[in-house]
Amino acid sequence: MPLATSYDASLPDWLIDDLESLPKVLPTVPERMRLVNELADRNWRAGNGGPFAAIVVDDATGELVSVGVNVVLSSGLTASHAEVTALSLAQRSLGRWDLGADGADLSLVVNWRPCVQCYGATMWSGVRSLVVAGEGPLLEELTGFDEGPMVRDWAAQFEQRGIRVTIGVGYDDALAVYRAYGASDSVVYNARGAVETT
Amino acid sequence: MPLATSYDASLPDWLIDDLESLPKVLPTVPERMRLVNELADRNWRAGNGGPFAAIVVDDATGELVSVGVNVVLSSGLTASHAEVTALSLAQRSLGRWDLGADGADLSLVVNWRPCVQCYGATMWSGVRSLVVAGEGPLLEELTGFDEGPMVRDWAAQFEQRGIRVTIGVGYDDALAVYRAYGASDSVVYNARGAVETT
Repeated sequence: MPLATSYDASLPDWLIDDLESLPKVLPTVPERMRLVNELADRNWRAGNGGPFAAIVVDDATGELVSVGVNVVLSSGLTASHAEVTALSLAQRSLGRWDLGADGADLSLVVNWRPCVQCYGATMWSGVRSLVVAGEGPLLEELTGFDEGPMVRDWAAQFEQRGIRVTIGVGYDDALAVYRAYGASDSVVYNARGAVETT
Repeated sequence: MPLATSYDASLPDWLIDDLESLPKVLPTVPERMRLVNELADRNWRAGNGGPFAAIVVDDATGELVSVGVNVVLSSGLTASHAEVTALSLAQRSLGRWDLGADGADLSLVVNWRPCVQCYGATMWSGVRSLVVAGEGPLLEELTGFDEGPMVRDWAAQFEQRGIRVTIGVGYDDALAVYRAYGASDSVVYNARGAVETT
């Protein structure tokens, strides 16, 4: 078997079809999270991956820079969580690996605290702030996903690196998505880990 | 600016050109790490990204499944560390997101303990073992990279999830690569974090 030399991931068709109709600007943080929670709910129902979405916005202007959802199942890549997808697409759009270059103040908005992989992905991306709907084990309890081992002072570690953290925006809406997902028979794609740790 | 809908990453040309000449089978763990250390050294000298490489091999047969290097600079994506590249290419080659499906016993071999992002990426990939040349702050001291906040019992957390961990293979060779890199004037691409935390 020849070795693979490249890999790629795409947004799902339903989201590509909808990009034109998304707001170009999301001035307030609750508006941003509302979009994220909506996309997360649509994503798992469409079968692309887990109930997770993320967007990158310019924190000052609210301009929408990228939209990501979890595409593990549709892309076949376990790394393509919503955060990695949104951050990578923002880097593609802007044509640079450092989203914080030239004083840019970009914000990643996600419907829960990132898993340990995406914790690092966020840290290395150059975004200057992170907004999450919630944190803690409730996500794992409701969905069966394993979020991985995280340091206790995860938010302080972001702040030390110049990344502001806001927790608790759109919390109830996020939980409603996880509850609906947990009540379905969807694939928990990191099943081995989840089974052994919950 | 239209929103991006897909992203991709490729191995660098020098490595694609060399794939045919790589051994198809690497029976022993030291042989596997020797290849990783060699590729890591070539990678930073070629300017593709940091001094990091990773391979996925079938642990029983030694068959080489994928080869990855850090392509942050050449791909423009901060997530495309050596581990994510190797794991994603293995998933492409095998056509599935779960590298551990059907009893497969695949091993990820890397020239240091993964950063926090790749810690998670490894955990979710389905590999059943991880081999690293070393762990601890020496890498950060020699290169200036920030590896991120990691739980103390990182190896035990892997073991709890059915992923065996081997530490210390090819240690001296790995350090030689980092020393050469640190003595150069290469870009430390997560510079903001590194500057603020070292």
